[in-house]
Amino acid sequence: MPRVLIVGGGFAGVATAKALRNTSCRVTLIDQRNYYLFQPLLYQVATAGLSPADIAGPIRGLFRDQPNVRVVLGAVTDVDVGTREVIIRDVRVPYDYLVIAAGARHSYFGHDEWAPFAPGLKQIDDAISIRSRLLFAFEQAENAESAAVQREMLTFVIVGGGPTGVELAGAIAELAHHGLAHEFRAIDPSKARVILMQAGPRILPTFPESLSRRAAAALTTLGVEVVTDSAVERIDDQGVVVSGCRVAARSVFWAAGVMASPAAQWLKAEADRAGRVKVVKDLSVPGLPNVFAIGDTALSNGWNGNPVPGLASAAKQQGCYVASVIKARIERRPPPAPFRYRHAGSLATVGRKAAVAEFGRLRLFGAPAWWVWGLVHVLFLSGMRNRMVVALEWFWAYLTYRPSTRLITGEIPMPTRSTFAPSTAGSPSRVAVRR
Amino acid sequence: MPRVLIVGGGFAGVATAKALRNTSCRVTLIDQRNYYLFQPLLYQVATAGLSPADIAGPIRGLFRDQPNVRVVLGAVTDVDVGTREVIIRDVRVPYDYLVIAAGARHSYFGHDEWAPFAPGLKQIDDAISIRSRLLFAFEQAENAESAAVQREMLTFVIVGGGPTGVELAGAIAELAHHGLAHEFRAIDPSKARVILMQAGPRILPTFPESLSRRAAAALTTLGVEVVTDSAVERIDDQGVVVSGCRVAARSVFWAAGVMASPAAQWLKAEADRAGRVKVVKDLSVPGLPNVFAIGDTALSNGWNGNPVPGLASAAKQQGCYVASVIKARIERRPPPAPFRYRHAGSLATVGRKAAVAEFGRLRLFGAPAWWVWGLVHVLFLSGMRNRMVVALEWFWAYLTYRPSTRLITGEIPMPTRSTFAPSTAGSPSRVAVRR
Repeated sequence: MPRVLIVGGGFAGVATAKALRNTSCRVTLIDQRNYYLFQPLLYQVATAGLSPADIAGPIRGLFRDQPNVRVVLGAVTDVDVGTREVIIRDVRVPYDYLVIAAGARHSYFGHDEWAPFAPGLKQIDDAISIRSRLLFAFEQAENAESAAVQREMLTFVIVGGGPTGVELAGAIAELAHHGLAHEFRAIDPSKARVILMQAGPRILPTFPESLSRRAAAALTTLGVEVVTDSAVERIDDQGVVVSGCRVAARSVFWAAGVMASPAAQWLKAEADRAGRVKVVKDLSVPGLPNVFAIGDTALSNGWNGNPVPGLASAAKQQGCYVASVIKARIERRPPPAPFRYRHAGSLATVGRKAAVAEFGRLRLFGAPAWWVWGLVHVLFLSGMRNRMVVALEWFWAYLTYRPSTRLITGEIPMPTRSTFAPSTAGSPSRVAVRR
Repeated sequence: MPRVLIVGGGFAGVATAKALRNTSCRVTLIDQRNYYLFQPLLYQVATAGLSPADIAGPIRGLFRDQPNVRVVLGAVTDVDVGTREVIIRDVRVPYDYLVIAAGARHSYFGHDEWAPFAPGLKQIDDAISIRSRLLFAFEQAENAESAAVQREMLTFVIVGGGPTGVELAGAIAELAHHGLAHEFRAIDPSKARVILMQAGPRILPTFPESLSRRAAAALTTLGVEVVTDSAVERIDDQGVVVSGCRVAARSVFWAAGVMASPAAQWLKAEADRAGRVKVVKDLSVPGLPNVFAIGDTALSNGWNGNPVPGLASAAKQQGCYVASVIKARIERRPPPAPFRYRHAGSLATVGRKAAVAEFGRLRLFGAPAWWVWGLVHVLFLSGMRNRMVVALEWFWAYLTYRPSTRLITGEIPMPTRSTFAPSTAGSPSRVAVRR
């Protein structure tokens, strides 16, 4: 039976495997993590609104009733297109059809030295780390001895004005203004500065301009400082430098750029600057008709000649399409028509009763867009249990204004100078317990 | 105003601070973590049944409406009883009354070299680490090339037959037999061996003997091998050695012993072998009438002359009692009568519809005990949100038999030999994708 190997258990890879349900082939799905992830809500894990398990679950759980799929936990290190094998460390797994759906990571545009000071948000562990840093910053501010350190601790910079940056900034501002009210004695969390920095002239650049303006206005109402036309020049343990000016901030979060998985290197295929493998009309890699690249790892011109956007719906459509191509080949039927992306719409949320939505000519903002956003996201979650739990969490947060997963766990790898302590080492000082 | 300093935000410390609500004093509660934790359900986080935020929440959230309490995130390093100051690294915090409720950690009876191979379960991070190791073991078994490695991966040893060990063993057996059904292709998870090792002659030694027998029988029904009178002699990356025999197992979990916080060293006070500070009738430390030790950090004879057990209810009772002592002193009233522990009962769960409960002369087991156990634990959780979420999770798991937080996150620090790979390095081998 033909062997289909899928690398990556995100939206694209899972859709491919699911669509091969009634095809006589053996599917192996390889991922370096054991869970699928509903990435659109990952920022809510990072800002203490949801638990990781509310938006993620074991990949193998999805294929319990599909015996032609085997799920393997492993990190692909290379592909041998000559012998048709995928290499996982020192093991080779043969394939007849290969689907690479390995996604993307955040990228610092060649400044990897910024990574320790400005974590990005792609995986559960990233979200947990951001959540811990965010909450820890308020704790450090509460313990700080000087007003200057307090101010630095309470300044949050988000680099990148796409949907993730906008959603992070909005959620952090709401946490500061509402979620932590009455809990601190030495600081007022609502005095926190939240700064959203965008290199281009407007936030949400993939949305219609009118909605960008609406989103910026909604962020400003929430207390977020929206700074456009400002490319970051430097990030270190003291903050960021933008257009020659330093902003002192201990918490910087990165939502600016992504880089595709190393699939192009594995395949020795042509890629764009973001590392995305260029694919032809049936989403196969040029010269390798049995190798496909889909999702954030691929660059396809299937949107009326324009690049297919990096959205969950695009990844799912590509997965289903590639499954139909493989199925046609296995069943020796004529191939389907070239891939065409059908755009359903775009959504981004800013905060409570504030979102923007675009469905073709229909544009929504404010509370209506927010309700649509919530409904769509609950419906698209995988599994009834997660839908119920997320709906319950949101209902609770809606009533109480308080996010409910505010735990500082794991190592907090932030390079931190001693707060809660004066610089005069040697003789311990007395701390003034402010009331 | 008198300054009351409480070290530790567990059951004992929180109860003390809460009980000082209407006392004219300034309370500072110091903990090294930002969250309180409902420890009796921690094993369910470790076995993928609940999310951390379902049983934990920020300590400062508990005192939002109690302005005389300040919560400080910090790790106490020493106490200066002469100057009446608690030392947090290089900062000194003065007190008039000191309450030490710093709990206990697991202890390896002088074999700290076992720690990397046999993690214990006291904090959220411990539970996440155990969960990851547990789930990873099944993944490694699925990828293993030899039946011998597969067997080692699917052997789980729990050391210690107290409530935590019994609950862990039962939950792991249920996960293997039901929770992972139909998800693997190369292994049958229900073939996993779960071995509970107890040094003494019976499990649950603090329960009546008839209930120990019932619990052991219920574990056996679940497929757990209960081994008594077996002291562990060695733990390494190959497994455990018990009574001269080696049991090959890659996953060993420690539920055998605890050691109190270093409070006795800080205070230079007398302690028992488990490091618990010996306290007098009003729970103060001998010779230090304004310093109290309560909860798992203290050894009190307040149970009709017997040691007060390390239970949540005991910790809460002690916290309330010490608050009443402090309040009486501040208000210059006569001190309350010596502390007396009132035992409400003991509960331990084995698995689905299997638990044991003892309330004085009333003894329950099986399904009735299980329902009582569930009800009591939901009611004792802190906050309506957590009660709702845990009840929903349990209801869902009851219907589906599947725990819902099966994520492998964080570093998996298990010393692991390569599975998924033969020992003949150099020439990569072909992996047989079994069906």
